[in-house]
Amino acid sequence: MTSSNKSNMKIFSLNSNLPLAEEIVQHIGVNMGKSSIKRFSDGEIQMNIEESIRGCDIYLIQSTNQPGNDYLMELLIMVDAMKRASAKTINCVIPYFGYSRQDRKARSREPITAKLIANLLEKAGADRVITVDLHAPQVQGFFNIPVDQLLARPILAKYFVEKNLDDVVVVAPENNGVVRARHLGNILHAPIALIDRNRRLEDPTCTSAMDFIGDVAGKTAIIIDDMVDTARTITTASRALMEKGAKEVYACCTHPVLSEPAVSWIEESPIKELVTTNTILLQEEKKIEKIKTLSIAPLLGEMIIKVQEEKSVSTLFEL
Amino acid sequence: MTSSNKSNMKIFSLNSNLPLAEEIVQHIGVNMGKSSIKRFSDGEIQMNIEESIRGCDIYLIQSTNQPGNDYLMELLIMVDAMKRASAKTINCVIPYFGYSRQDRKARSREPITAKLIANLLEKAGADRVITVDLHAPQVQGFFNIPVDQLLARPILAKYFVEKNLDDVVVVAPENNGVVRARHLGNILHAPIALIDRNRRLEDPTCTSAMDFIGDVAGKTAIIIDDMVDTARTITTASRALMEKGAKEVYACCTHPVLSEPAVSWIEESPIKELVTTNTILLQEEKKIEKIKTLSIAPLLGEMIIKVQEEKSVSTLFEL
Amino acid sequence: MTSSNKSNMKIFSLNSNLPLAEEIVQHIGVNMGKSSIKRFSDGEIQMNIEESIRGCDIYLIQSTNQPGNDYLMELLIMVDAMKRASAKTINCVIPYFGYSRQDRKARSREPITAKLIANLLEKAGADRVITVDLHAPQVQGFFNIPVDQLLARPILAKYFVEKNLDDVVVVAPENNGVVRARHLGNILHAPIALIDRNRRLEDPTCTSAMDFIGDVAGKTAIIIDDMVDTARTITTASRALMEKGAKEVYACCTHPVLSEPAVSWIEESPIKELVTTNTILLQEEKKIEKIKTLSIAPLLGEMIIKVQEEKSVSTLFEL
Amino acid sequence: MTSSNKSNMKIFSLNSNLPLAEEIVQHIGVNMGKSSIKRFSDGEIQMNIEESIRGCDIYLIQSTNQPGNDYLMELLIMVDAMKRASAKTINCVIPYFGYSRQDRKARSREPITAKLIANLLEKAGADRVITVDLHAPQVQGFFNIPVDQLLARPILAKYFVEKNLDDVVVVAPENNGVVRARHLGNILHAPIALIDRNRRLEDPTCTSAMDFIGDVAGKTAIIIDDMVDTARTITTASRALMEKGAKEVYACCTHPVLSEPAVSWIEESPIKELVTTNTILLQEEKKIEKIKTLSIAPLLGEMIIKVQEEKSVSTLFEL
Amino acid sequence: MTSSNKSNMKIFSLNSNLPLAEEIVQHIGVNMGKSSIKRFSDGEIQMNIEESIRGCDIYLIQSTNQPGNDYLMELLIMVDAMKRASAKTINCVIPYFGYSRQDRKARSREPITAKLIANLLEKAGADRVITVDLHAPQVQGFFNIPVDQLLARPILAKYFVEKNLDDVVVVAPENNGVVRARHLGNILHAPIALIDRNRRLEDPTCTSAMDFIGDVAGKTAIIIDDMVDTARTITTASRALMEKGAKEVYACCTHPVLSEPAVSWIEESPIKELVTTNTILLQEEKKIEKIKTLSIAPLLGEMIIKVQEEKSVSTLFEL
Amino acid sequence: MTSSNKSNMKIFSLNSNLPLAEEIVQHIGVNMGKSSIKRFSDGEIQMNIEESIRGCDIYLIQSTNQPGNDYLMELLIMVDAMKRASAKTINCVIPYFGYSRQDRKARSREPITAKLIANLLEKAGADRVITVDLHAPQVQGFFNIPVDQLLARPILAKYFVEKNLDDVVVVAPENNGVVRARHLGNILHAPIALIDRNRRLEDPTCTSAMDFIGDVAGKTAIIIDDMVDTARTITTASRALMEKGAKEVYACCTHPVLSEPAVSWIEESPIKELVTTNTILLQEEKKIEKIKTLSIAPLLGEMIIKVQEEKSVSTLFEL
Repeated sequence: MTSSNKSNMKIFSLNSNLPLAEEIVQHIGVNMGKSSIKRFSDGEIQMNIEESIRGCDIYLIQSTNQPGNDYLMELLIMVDAMKRASAKTINCVIPYFGYSRQDRKARSREPITAKLIANLLEKAGADRVITVDLHAPQVQGFFNIPVDQLLARPILAKYFVEKNLDDVVVVAPENNGVVRARHLGNILHAPIALIDRNRRLEDPTCTSAMDFIGDVAGKTAIIIDDMVDTARTITTASRALMEKGAKEVYACCTHPVLSEPAVSWIEESPIKELVTTNTILLQEEKKIEKIKTLSIAPLLGEMIIKVQEEKSVSTLFEL
Repeated sequence: MTSSNKSNMKIFSLNSNLPLAEEIVQHIGVNMGKSSIKRFSDGEIQMNIEESIRGCDIYLIQSTNQPGNDYLMELLIMVDAMKRASAKTINCVIPYFGYSRQDRKARSREPITAKLIANLLEKAGADRVITVDLHAPQVQGFFNIPVDQLLARPILAKYFVEKNLDDVVVVAPENNGVVRARHLGNILHAPIALIDRNRRLEDPTCTSAMDFIGDVAGKTAIIIDDMVDTARTITTASRALMEKGAKEVYACCTHPVLSEPAVSWIEESPIKELVTTNTILLQEEKKIEKIKTLSIAPLLGEMIIKVQEEKSVSTLFEL
Repeated sequence: MTSSNKSNMKIFSLNSNLPLAEEIVQHIGVNMGKSSIKRFSDGEIQMNIEESIRGCDIYLIQSTNQPGNDYLMELLIMVDAMKRASAKTINCVIPYFGYSRQDRKARSREPITAKLIANLLEKAGADRVITVDLHAPQVQGFFNIPVDQLLARPILAKYFVEKNLDDVVVVAPENNGVVRARHLGNILHAPIALIDRNRRLEDPTCTSAMDFIGDVAGKTAIIIDDMVDTARTITTASRALMEKGAKEVYACCTHPVLSEPAVSWIEESPIKELVTTNTILLQEEKKIEKIKTLSIAPLLGEMIIKVQEEKSVSTLFEL
Repeated sequence: MTSSNKSNMKIFSLNSNLPLAEEIVQHIGVNMGKSSIKRFSDGEIQMNIEESIRGCDIYLIQSTNQPGNDYLMELLIMVDAMKRASAKTINCVIPYFGYSRQDRKARSREPITAKLIANLLEKAGADRVITVDLHAPQVQGFFNIPVDQLLARPILAKYFVEKNLDDVVVVAPENNGVVRARHLGNILHAPIALIDRNRRLEDPTCTSAMDFIGDVAGKTAIIIDDMVDTARTITTASRALMEKGAKEVYACCTHPVLSEPAVSWIEESPIKELVTTNTILLQEEKKIEKIKTLSIAPLLGEMIIKVQEEKSVSTLFEL
Repeated sequence: MTSSNKSNMKIFSLNSNLPLAEEIVQHIGVNMGKSSIKRFSDGEIQMNIEESIRGCDIYLIQSTNQPGNDYLMELLIMVDAMKRASAKTINCVIPYFGYSRQDRKARSREPITAKLIANLLEKAGADRVITVDLHAPQVQGFFNIPVDQLLARPILAKYFVEKNLDDVVVVAPENNGVVRARHLGNILHAPIALIDRNRRLEDPTCTSAMDFIGDVAGKTAIIIDDMVDTARTITTASRALMEKGAKEVYACCTHPVLSEPAVSWIEESPIKELVTTNTILLQEEKKIEKIKTLSIAPLLGEMIIKVQEEKSVSTLFEL
Repeated sequence: MTSSNKSNMKIFSLNSNLPLAEEIVQHIGVNMGKSSIKRFSDGEIQMNIEESIRGCDIYLIQSTNQPGNDYLMELLIMVDAMKRASAKTINCVIPYFGYSRQDRKARSREPITAKLIANLLEKAGADRVITVDLHAPQVQGFFNIPVDQLLARPILAKYFVEKNLDDVVVVAPENNGVVRARHLGNILHAPIALIDRNRRLEDPTCTSAMDFIGDVAGKTAIIIDDMVDTARTITTASRALMEKGAKEVYACCTHPVLSEPAVSWIEESPIKELVTTNTILLQEEKKIEKIKTLSIAPLLGEMIIKVQEEKSVSTLFEL
């Protein structure tokens, strides 16, 4: 990028995923903005921006995974501070957008927390959001500011293409995951199947079996989801797939939430490999051999460059 | 409802679906508010509210089906007029919420028109939206005002239950319709199948066949969608289902958009019956024997009563 | 203009008046931005911006004449799309601002639709409005964003000056048109007269005569109005002027709305010529010899250049 | 009005026109709310609301005539205080709305101060504005809250009807006053005339004569304007009318701004009587015999009662 | 309070201080609203409002002490849910308003987090805030909604009055605490002293001594602060006071933040008693004999009753 | 500064303090923007911006001292005009921010006028505020736009340092002035004392004596306050200081409000010199020998340059 564009751009990272942020600044070839986020003894967040940002285009990197409320407050407080410190624009780079599953009123009197967070970010002063694989694409419409959503699926697909697996079937682990499975299936030229979560399955006395729709016998199954949380769904599915005659089972997802006891359940399951990305920083104790992490730093870095240079980003969305 | 509550409530209807509005006021037992919406010679909308609404809770009924821009402008202008005429609250009853398919940026530089319309309604002065079966439930989160979304599925399901069909399979006509199909399947205690729209199918030279996932042979298939527009999807699906050995094919949807040439295509297809509701007014020439219309007026009427009486509406959402 | 300013500017046109937009881009010497606006089968507007606009100053040309609701929705949807596509500024060029006659509550419970539309444009994301001859200049105050209003009167006046008519009287066709008539009269150094619409005239059984104030006998009368809709006013006035002894009658206006049956009424009237501009595109069947259209493209083009170059526009308002 | 409605309503007056406010509360039959507005030694306004207003509907009476900036700030500060003191609604009764002549950009880089003030009132927390005879009716559209504009013309007209003058002509003192003159003419069944302010008149070396359009010889002329400021216009007009053979000259207006040297100019002019209202409090030294003040307190009182009882106000607008 | 007012009011508590909330509902004589706040396995907050709140005035009790970000997010999510569930008004009762010390930019590029939180609460949908002893009274002005701030000082003062101590001096532990000390001194008819935190004291090598201004020898010193966090200030002060000859040392504060190692420091210090309130729930391990907790539940209960009954609250602010 | 930055910047001054504005533009080396602010005969403000400001960064200088309502309205109207005239940014330079003492609800039903004014400035269109010594630093948080607050204390301190006084004590004239006194004391390496305004002192029959805390005997006392209004506080304090044995008494403040009868009281008091700045223009009759005015123009000029060049301003805040 031209040096005049670079000189006006500053990239800052908050605490949730410093290694990813480091990769991004190295990809772009700039220095990380200097700031410190500490805690007072009573847990309140204390922030210090240690260089002038007057008139700068800021890219502020923060995933809002666990502890999500703390990471979200860090983000909101930093946006407020940057607005008051006369930043020109504040672009929030949120690789993992927490609370995105709470995107609708499923029952009476439920909150729509993903919308609330959109409102809070705008009110604090965010000018743009760059994010990866929202739980539902409609969440873009919760914002009145531009939202650039990147997809990690091409990265995941490329990994499987290079593995050169044959006779693949892509499996959606839930009724609403079919579009995602179809998308990966299209890249891999593979058919799809789905696990049909009907009422019988919701009966807690009846979890030993799962209903499949589509053929899996003799095939290499790749389960795909946007995030893996406790891993209950994919590990149960992997067992059922093996029972139905699948040859082997892979799983992949964009966001490795991996709450307890996800790692041990994956370890014990027939899943051969869980392929994921670094939108969320994996703690050391979760780094097991079965979990393969691909980096989205180049994708996010390219996105930031294009936004800063005001070039079209549409090529980044192509498969 | 108590007379004090009724006296403070006024129901008005705009032009898109007067028969439905009439049914609603009869269900509630009130008179229709007096207003007239005319057009100037140059097409601009002229509005006249012919009774005082100062301090009243207004329920304003308007679907935004074709001509959708005109019906939307009628709605926005009326909301503005009512706000300036000192209405206490303005509750927009929008049985069919047009543009709701444009709810995300599927490609670069696309609008999110459903969100735009949410913004326009709030800016004009709407205090609440009551609607039926949004294309995606996340559209509720486009609003900052309360949105009460009713589901027509129980009405459609009840109709099929009473038909006493046996060996039913509920069919999703697209990859993203599986949740809806599962929902109906749960009510009817039926399995589901789906039509897999993969890349091969998008090839226009290759429409003669469709991929199915799930078993349909020998079964009574019920295709379900939220709306039927040109009917290309359901009529093609119905043929494919018959080819795959289905015994007979029904279709159902909440919103009968039925743009040209939907009616003739349905007429010519193996679909035995298309069951739908009156969220959109069916023009006379579209009322063919194969299309069965169920009324949502009682559901909307009960909703309005509960909102006005400030009672819980959660029972209306139960199946 | 400097090439650096030009490179950052893009001009797009929506569907209402493509020939005018073409003239404007040719005047400025840039290419028209690539976009397409289509309709789905159910009438909903589908939009495609076919080149990147990230960081650009956009000038979006659209009059909101009949079908005004459709053209207004095109405009609002495009503004929303451009905002989400990261345009730097969105300048709406609205040569004819529809609904501008609905600018006050003339009776109880009337909407103020011109204000509503100002609110909708701002909410959608417009940063500026450039327009021509608002029905009332106060409409500028309906906006919180800058509004640049151009006047077509100097163009109309120049045409009559070149005609070299003698003994002219400028005639206001309604009580509230006197300021406009005086303005033209000042340029032409002519006296004015007005048609007094008093209560007697509102009596539909009494349209055979009109009251004049001021002298017209033996003079060349030029009736001026901001827009001509059905042409009832100016054609009736032209007959009355002839009865009162006028030598000949011209008419002029900025906005040729010309709803049915304007053209045939004008054809049959004693009006010698109706001089107007191309703020509204005249359909082929309305292009009769009596109607003379002057172009405002150079004026709008100069305005856009000055706004883009951040130069004073005040010279454009001089007579 | 019912006692329950009254008990919830409180009327407060600021400093600009206490006698009018007293008349209004007597008309309605309630007590004046207790408050005090003082000045600190440095001129800042100090405010004290001396009774609880929690949950009350407030009617706050203040004209913003000279010193207009002080009276406007009193109003804004009081609205802010009342909002923070938990008033239910704050209805600003502004009989004379100052700055209303600055309602459009007449030249480049002019403010639209009337719009600014609308924005300030809304931002401070006003819920409704009740006012009398805005300079242009479009000012209603500057607000997003309801504006109820009362007209004083029927009161002025009634006074002249009772005078039983014969052969009246209503005279507009400026080109844009013709609508107002026609309105009064309609009530009095009288023709109109106007003073044509053309360029020659704007020449300061040429003020000795005025151009008239319409017949005034031998008639009783009534000049009407919305406000009389320095009285230059109406006094010059009165002399010209007498020269043109008028029998006698009356003048009337809603708002007696009467800046220096209006009173002495009126005294010295041929104007027989200036009929006005008490929207602005006349200082003692301005109370001369020629100036007749009619009260608008009953009209404003009826308006407040109807607003509070949520009854239709449309009857108040009839002539 | 009248039963009609009660029936419309519902009180809910979130998780930070349930015992206080229980005391408040008992004081008022109503039941606690039914809701549950749980955590998903990844730490995201899950909320359930278990009874209809349509049309109700809600009082939502939550202090935002440690873990403050979690308690703040609970509050924001609940406000959003209640707004969407059609609550009539949402009154946030925040006995301890966390982050209130971050109320100004003390250095360049600092956030003003207290203002940010005010903005977030308003954006989420709060209609009013009821709180106790803000760190600075100016924080009220961070809100545009009404803020009712209660003072705990009269409760603390009453406790000391009843102790009947003689020869009291009230001590401000910091330069900006003098107003607070003077206030308590006025109630106790006592003189004040202050600890002067000058530059020398900020030198970390020089903490062994403190500068006093005012006389403390032979007196009973009462140190007052709005909150006690790590207790470094008051424990150091207590030692210095004893060195300067004070007879005995008490301390008091409204908010017992008491972060580690406050309790052990207090235990080891010469402080005879720390008198505080229950705005923050004291964990069991912090309940030592030296810490005396007074209840503010009656004060908050009375406040809620008066707000609900729309009565004046000014009596609650008197000493 | 670079010429490209300068060319885009324009500085305008309103009427309150033209000499200060002149000093500022000379410091920066630019010309003053051409505008005129006049009054109509009825006191309404008439504004004329006499050069194009399209696309410019505007710095608009106006203190809001007496007559504060007029100066505030000038400022609001000018901001509105500049926004509509397409200024790029509008930076309000408000050396003295009037009404800043009204920054909290001290009693029930009080306004928070400083917050109201912050809201009005933002609503009018201000993008930034540059000010000097706010009465409370929390007022920064009343704004959502950046506020740069400069401190005049270093300028005042430098003056006293150069005087080379010995045995200084800095005196806070009120309980809440201790922080300010400590700040000056730190620069001068001096101890502090304060005047304790307790209840006895508020008794009007008992003003003959003042309570001091801290030692003043034999010392040179410097009383510091942010503003001096009627001078009652500092003149009474000066007498009491002399009675307590002070050697001599100086006073200093940032803002010389000096309402009647401040100047004569100061003249008659033992105050040797009142050192102040030119944030407020001193009228000729107030320029007495005892009052020494230091210029803040260089400080404000540097601030404007740094803002315009987008450089860090933090060095300006260092002592």
